[in-house]
Amino acid sequence: MRVLVPFAADAPKTRLEGVLSTDERTAFARAMLRDVVAAVDAAGGEPTVLSTAPLAFETPRARVVVDDRPLSPAVNARLSTARGDDPVAVVMADLALATPGALEDLFAAAGDVAIAPGRGAGTNALVVRHPEFRVDYHGGSFLDHREITAEIGADLAVVDSFRLGTDVDEPDDLVEVLVHGTDRAPAVLRELGFELDAESGRVGVARAGNAASN
Amino acid sequence: MRVLVPFAADAPKTRLEGVLSTDERTAFARAMLRDVVAAVDAAGGEPTVLSTAPLAFETPRARVVVDDRPLSPAVNARLSTARGDDPVAVVMADLALATPGALEDLFAAAGDVAIAPGRGAGTNALVVRHPEFRVDYHGGSFLDHREITAEIGADLAVVDSFRLGTDVDEPDDLVEVLVHGTDRAPAVLRELGFELDAESGRVGVARAGNAASN
Repeated sequence: MRVLVPFAADAPKTRLEGVLSTDERTAFARAMLRDVVAAVDAAGGEPTVLSTAPLAFETPRARVVVDDRPLSPAVNARLSTARGDDPVAVVMADLALATPGALEDLFAAAGDVAIAPGRGAGTNALVVRHPEFRVDYHGGSFLDHREITAEIGADLAVVDSFRLGTDVDEPDDLVEVLVHGTDRAPAVLRELGFELDAESGRVGVARAGNAASN
Repeated sequence: MRVLVPFAADAPKTRLEGVLSTDERTAFARAMLRDVVAAVDAAGGEPTVLSTAPLAFETPRARVVVDDRPLSPAVNARLSTARGDDPVAVVMADLALATPGALEDLFAAAGDVAIAPGRGAGTNALVVRHPEFRVDYHGGSFLDHREITAEIGADLAVVDSFRLGTDVDEPDDLVEVLVHGTDRAPAVLRELGFELDAESGRVGVARAGNAASN
């Protein structure tokens, strides 16, 4: 299966700027991207990183295509060839908890469109098997995508996955990476001094003695 | 399968006090409990509401047992009879997104202990098939439960479910109920005037013209 992995090479993870410097956010975003690409590959997908700018690092197992348009038009330019027997998937680059098993379930889901929603009605990952489906990643995209699917007369499958439902945008999300992440992303956080902190009765992350979030 | 549904009858959903009055929180917590009990029943479980106080309302299809001890000892008093062929499950009463299908997958998961984790290393639902396993719902319980499972030489299955991974504690969580809830809980929120609000670019909830969260 063709799998697009959109990546904002020029503005990595701005909502983490309270806890990570620009260089650190860049390193962390790259680690998540590499974890996602590796999981897609292990799940039998053919990953293409759809990047807003040329990448200054290697992504083993993935092609890289540069498209500096905003997310939705860049993805939509590549959806019209989606067919039932030749689908196109889109998997966000910040799904640091993604495993091959979770992605296999997504890829195997029935439906002309299959969506793994994230919190806040996000669309974290999807599979498109219908040539008329288009994405609109503006706020509440899961609701919009459900509506678009109905409008074009396509079937929708909703894939129930905590791993695919967890995108890493905000400081609280780093807890999930440390608890459930499997490869480079949690390793980068640990190298940067983050560790789980259960002192407060809820698990948060702490860094070098400072509470980064709880 | 025997399924305990712990319910704090006397302190419903205190972290929602910024957006719901005490009476409203009581009504909402009851609605979530009823949705969870109905889903457990439809999934083939035998639900027992483990309540901190007698309930002033009916819970069709569920027995009610009152135990005013804290959560962990109240649950642990009922785990020692768990066996491979007669397990005991524990499903939190605020899993408003739980569906019969998600619970069937949990109940069918292999392992002496099967856990559906929530955000912040929580343990939102679990199945116990080993008589020595005990819960400890203090902060970061998923990590503790993983350790306890290893200590008693039991196998652990981690169940990957966005629906079971979403407990409803805080105002932001109400979005998930409105988007993915299936029965009474979203109906109560709508009766109270909550609706999805995608104006800000991210979906939040708004009530009677006031932004309750985004």
